[in-house]
Amino acid sequence: MAGPRVDRHLFVVFGATGDLLRRKLLPALYEVAGSLAGPGVPFQILGVARQALSDEAYRQICTEALVAAGAAPRAAARRWVAARVRYCSLGAGAPADFARLANRIEEVEKAAGLAGHRVFYLALPAEAIPSVVAGLGGAGLARSAGWSRLVVEKPFGTDLASAERLNRELHRFFDERSIYRIDHYLGKETVQNLLVFRFANMLFESVWNRDRISHVEITVAEALGVEERATYYDQSGALRDMVQSHLTQLLTLTAMEVPARLEADAVRNEKVKVLASVEPIRPDDVVRGQYAAGRAGRSRLRAYRNEPGIRRGSTTETFVALRLRLNNWRWQGVPFFLRTGKRLPEKRTEIVVHFRRPPVWFFPGPSVADVVANRLTITLQPDEGFEIAFELKRPGHAITLETHRLHFLYSEAFGPLADAYQTLLVDLMRGDPTLFVRADEVEAAWAVYAAVLARPPPLRAYPAGTWGPPEAERLAEELGHHWSDG
Amino acid sequence: MAGPRVDRHLFVVFGATGDLLRRKLLPALYEVAGSLAGPGVPFQILGVARQALSDEAYRQICTEALVAAGAAPRAAARRWVAARVRYCSLGAGAPADFARLANRIEEVEKAAGLAGHRVFYLALPAEAIPSVVAGLGGAGLARSAGWSRLVVEKPFGTDLASAERLNRELHRFFDERSIYRIDHYLGKETVQNLLVFRFANMLFESVWNRDRISHVEITVAEALGVEERATYYDQSGALRDMVQSHLTQLLTLTAMEVPARLEADAVRNEKVKVLASVEPIRPDDVVRGQYAAGRAGRSRLRAYRNEPGIRRGSTTETFVALRLRLNNWRWQGVPFFLRTGKRLPEKRTEIVVHFRRPPVWFFPGPSVADVVANRLTITLQPDEGFEIAFELKRPGHAITLETHRLHFLYSEAFGPLADAYQTLLVDLMRGDPTLFVRADEVEAAWAVYAAVLARPPPLRAYPAGTWGPPEAERLAEELGHHWSDG
Repeated sequence: MAGPRVDRHLFVVFGATGDLLRRKLLPALYEVAGSLAGPGVPFQILGVARQALSDEAYRQICTEALVAAGAAPRAAARRWVAARVRYCSLGAGAPADFARLANRIEEVEKAAGLAGHRVFYLALPAEAIPSVVAGLGGAGLARSAGWSRLVVEKPFGTDLASAERLNRELHRFFDERSIYRIDHYLGKETVQNLLVFRFANMLFESVWNRDRISHVEITVAEALGVEERATYYDQSGALRDMVQSHLTQLLTLTAMEVPARLEADAVRNEKVKVLASVEPIRPDDVVRGQYAAGRAGRSRLRAYRNEPGIRRGSTTETFVALRLRLNNWRWQGVPFFLRTGKRLPEKRTEIVVHFRRPPVWFFPGPSVADVVANRLTITLQPDEGFEIAFELKRPGHAITLETHRLHFLYSEAFGPLADAYQTLLVDLMRGDPTLFVRADEVEAAWAVYAAVLARPPPLRAYPAGTWGPPEAERLAEELGHHWSDG
Repeated sequence: MAGPRVDRHLFVVFGATGDLLRRKLLPALYEVAGSLAGPGVPFQILGVARQALSDEAYRQICTEALVAAGAAPRAAARRWVAARVRYCSLGAGAPADFARLANRIEEVEKAAGLAGHRVFYLALPAEAIPSVVAGLGGAGLARSAGWSRLVVEKPFGTDLASAERLNRELHRFFDERSIYRIDHYLGKETVQNLLVFRFANMLFESVWNRDRISHVEITVAEALGVEERATYYDQSGALRDMVQSHLTQLLTLTAMEVPARLEADAVRNEKVKVLASVEPIRPDDVVRGQYAAGRAGRSRLRAYRNEPGIRRGSTTETFVALRLRLNNWRWQGVPFFLRTGKRLPEKRTEIVVHFRRPPVWFFPGPSVADVVANRLTITLQPDEGFEIAFELKRPGHAITLETHRLHFLYSEAFGPLADAYQTLLVDLMRGDPTLFVRADEVEAAWAVYAAVLARPPPLRAYPAGTWGPPEAERLAEELGHHWSDG
């Protein structure tokens, strides 16, 4: 199959010597370059960072990164890098530095015969974003003879006010249509397939509502504790780092109405509509937890507060469970249970759609209240796929029911999947923002959690290696439900 | 698991030297005896036939039958038979013969310490049934100190009038509650599970109606031609032999409303209701076919009219396709396509439920008219199980949809299944008639096909080894559908 076609362009990456570039972005660019259709080199790369480096020295860094990531053998990596990678130092980031960057960009474009299509990928910590955007704008780099696209990684603010401020700063120089906010969850096959699954299959979409569905669980469980990003994480916590972004994205894609078209703004309008229908979260809808010392198998796990880089006595949550109510015609009365945490028993990301029980149960065995309801589980980690659990009769003379599962795994059907970053990079290069987060979506997501962020409920300890504080179970039990495998 | 408990009883089988007894019934009785709970021998067997045979000679026949069927090694078979089998000759079947039989029954019951519970299993050709039933009744054998149950095999008449006559003859001596009409399809796991599948799974039952389902196919395809039963078959044909019985049973179980209870009369009431709602079949709803010479792989297959035992110039159909309309709230507007035949390309029995297409299609590729709709296929042969076909996104940058199948096979999950006869024998011994056909059900089924039987449409030839005459495809095409793999 011929890959997608993109305009030949210059891919300018800020934070060019950083971890994200070396571990994720560059290997993904390498793969993407190989999959694009058309003759010639589809994009040139210009690395930008503070430090002074020669093109040659930077190419060396990139070659090593590709080799270390297992993307290519050294010789191939070197050839690939030599054909498209250059470097430009930004120094202290003064206006004169940005002017120099602008010159260098024009020079590279001329040498490579590019028409002025540009990506500015800001692989930078949040606090560095506004000044770089202002610098780009001040040097006239937000406009060119071709298109200019600005890529920002999360976090998109730390609350509603800061998100609005960030959006204003971006919008001073870049149109919303040119801004690509990355949440890498949206690049996963299963997330993209959610739309196909729902809107190409009458069997599922016709039961996707309050008449047929009892409740929905969204779980993003991590077995790891806080690792390299301790300083950032300790200022952020699970609600900001995971719930407002990844879990909310899964929520909106699961709950959204059918869009008018399969097109960026049509889809994102529906996602925003979901957020607008979330009822205010009450204090007893939320449980915050922080892991204490515990065990995983034979190994002892230390408490969050004793992890390197974490403040003594930190009250940052490493676990959040909450229940949301969607006040719309499709979902009224159907609770959405969201849960995420570090140092849980396993790595698992899934959406579990629990159908209602049959209204009447005339089979021997459990009473209707104990009947196992049908379940659709959409799994993103550790394996992408899904599973339908249903009841059937065990062969034999008695009518004995058993729960069976039909499962589908992408890797079984198609082999290994492309990294989510590759999907998102191609969409970026093609100018399709469907899988990127729009400004109003970011703000609406912060608005949902504003009250919880302003008045966080008490922090509960849970032993590392468990499914969070026992209070989380109460959230579900009060409504007659249970977390799956919780 | 302890097996079911049954009252200790005498199992009287007429046609005791026949093929059905030796190949099917006796091996099933052997298996069933091993699965029943409780101490002692749960039933004694009394074989009855015209010829004169000693108990010992008949035991020899039974032992050989069990060995030939692979049910048991010779020594075990001999022991089993010796512990429970006796024989009684019926001679010409005069009243005195039945009186002698009555004496023998009492004698055996006394010797074995039985309380008078009796099964009369008529493994006899249709024409022999009325006189045996009258003989039993005349000798006072329709009543006893315990229960008496009469088992009849299909055909239950050859049209509505003869079915009504047969029922009247049975009812002269036996209550309808004591009559067990066997259609062995009803003993298959998949058929029993149809009720569980529908009524224990909200996911399926909630889409089981005209809003969600476009059409239903029921296929019973045989690869074989007419074999041993040539004389019977040539008088009967596919409509009487297969459609009125097996296909109609699958139809009623697929289409029935939820019964009030999972209990024999509640279930059978709903089945009769389905038949009452079938709209009169019009001549152009039916295609009759007869196989001509053809091939299967390299072997030549002779025409039906040249098979041994078939009348020259026979106009008996070996293939029927028809479409039924159910004029009720659940199914109005949803055609049910039924099809059966001999010498088709493969042995396959299945119910295919075609869901409606999504009303809107915004994915690239086919227009909405060509979109593949979701399908649920319930398979009875060659393997019992089912399969859900649905659409998903092929991994990659383009949104390319593919049809995938999730399948469930009983044999994969549970190992080999018990023979349908075993299931039905246990139900008979327990006194549960749910899976047996009630008198009014038989008559209602004949009534559905009365007009077709009275004025059969023209016979079309089809080459052996094909999916029937091309006119069968027209039945589906006229309504915008196609037979699956036809």
